[in-house]
Amino acid sequence: MTTDLVPKECAMQAQIGGRRLTVGGMAKGSGMIHPNLATMLGVLTTDAALEPELAQRALRAAATNTFNQVSVDRDTSTNDTLVLLASGAAGGEPIAPGTADAEAFGALLTAVCVDLARQIARDGEGASRMITARIEGASSDADARRIAREIVCSPLVKTAVYGRDPNWGRILAAIGNAGVPIDPTTIDLWIGDIQVASGGTRTNFDEGRVSDAMGAEEVLIRASLGGDSGRGEAWGCDLTEGYVRINAEYTT
Amino acid sequence: MTTDLVPKECAMQAQIGGRRLTVGGMAKGSGMIHPNLATMLGVLTTDAALEPELAQRALRAAATNTFNQVSVDRDTSTNDTLVLLASGAAGGEPIAPGTADAEAFGALLTAVCVDLARQIARDGEGASRMITARIEGASSDADARRIAREIVCSPLVKTAVYGRDPNWGRILAAIGNAGVPIDPTTIDLWIGDIQVASGGTRTNFDEGRVSDAMGAEEVLIRASLGGDSGRGEAWGCDLTEGYVRINAEYTT
Repeated sequence: MTTDLVPKECAMQAQIGGRRLTVGGMAKGSGMIHPNLATMLGVLTTDAALEPELAQRALRAAATNTFNQVSVDRDTSTNDTLVLLASGAAGGEPIAPGTADAEAFGALLTAVCVDLARQIARDGEGASRMITARIEGASSDADARRIAREIVCSPLVKTAVYGRDPNWGRILAAIGNAGVPIDPTTIDLWIGDIQVASGGTRTNFDEGRVSDAMGAEEVLIRASLGGDSGRGEAWGCDLTEGYVRINAEYTT
Repeated sequence: MTTDLVPKECAMQAQIGGRRLTVGGMAKGSGMIHPNLATMLGVLTTDAALEPELAQRALRAAATNTFNQVSVDRDTSTNDTLVLLASGAAGGEPIAPGTADAEAFGALLTAVCVDLARQIARDGEGASRMITARIEGASSDADARRIAREIVCSPLVKTAVYGRDPNWGRILAAIGNAGVPIDPTTIDLWIGDIQVASGGTRTNFDEGRVSDAMGAEEVLIRASLGGDSGRGEAWGCDLTEGYVRINAEYTT
């Protein structure tokens, strides 16, 4: 049984090493989605000529910032798979590691993975809307990713988004719950394009406007930690009665 | 606003050092419950004579196995408090650390905390029934506690309990998701008193009977990992549409 509502596909092209290279991908997954491996089934294809080592390295790097930053329900799957198939049909010598071409290919691969990761979050079981958490000003990219993931994982943030509740305190609590040292007094926080906290303190925001912003198909939660230059994103979805129903349904 | 439906109180007595000592306690908490500190508001009282150091040590030990093993929604609170007040009204010299009396007092304190922790799990936001996870045969008590907590935290286990779905695979997946090395081929698993897996493989259980067992007010999930002598328990509750409604409700 699958609870996916839509097929998830993506293809992008870039000019690399004098050739127009394509990376395509498809993914499947809707529940039991939480970063650990790649957390779902994903197949990527490219006509680029790639040695296995470079392909593996590029795929790992792309997954770190994309598939490993998606969470629907914090439950990991037991059969996560992400595969990259490179046919070399575009011709030419394999892309050499450490070159500008390798970097460009990595960026193309990552862009396709971001697109697919977002499609998975959007189609989360029972979800009515998608949540994007964007962190900047963290001590490292890894810290930023961890904090972003904690935000999209928090049941209280997820239900607040579902209910369009501009409960910025739940977001601050999730940031503090990521296991990363933070200084709450330097945190600026936005929901959509409205700043809801400055230096860890509530701004004079209009609750109705923020609630409206939380009705968007994609709700952006953005925090600047006021520290270093670490940044990261994570994607998730709201928690609805639909998720409970889908996973509580049982018929002998 | 509180979402507690019932008051949570407990009092127990024991004969310690020739005196009948009493430990009483009350706790408040229903959502935003997940082990980190003590994860809610709890006040314990006793008439025992205690030096602060022994009181602190006994309280920490008791919390480790009780309040820190309760999870309603994996979201930690920002104002967890657990306090022990000792009046010394029972008279006598303060209980000396390292003695049989100190151990007996610790056991009494832990028993009261277990009772309160279970009351909190039972009154989890939106919960229709309580889940107890009991792990034995782990490498250490800490590992066993961590695995037990993962089981009661898993949204997929929680929704399966809500739907009375004898989905033993979700329980095995949660065990494997605890970040503790395990050998799935040595895991025996019970739901209520019915064994559903032996050596990691499904037994020939009657689904209807297990589904009935999952309709109990308290659903016991028990696993023997077939390793060492580590054991631990955790308490949680099912995940229902009620939890979503309580936390998505928003009125300006």
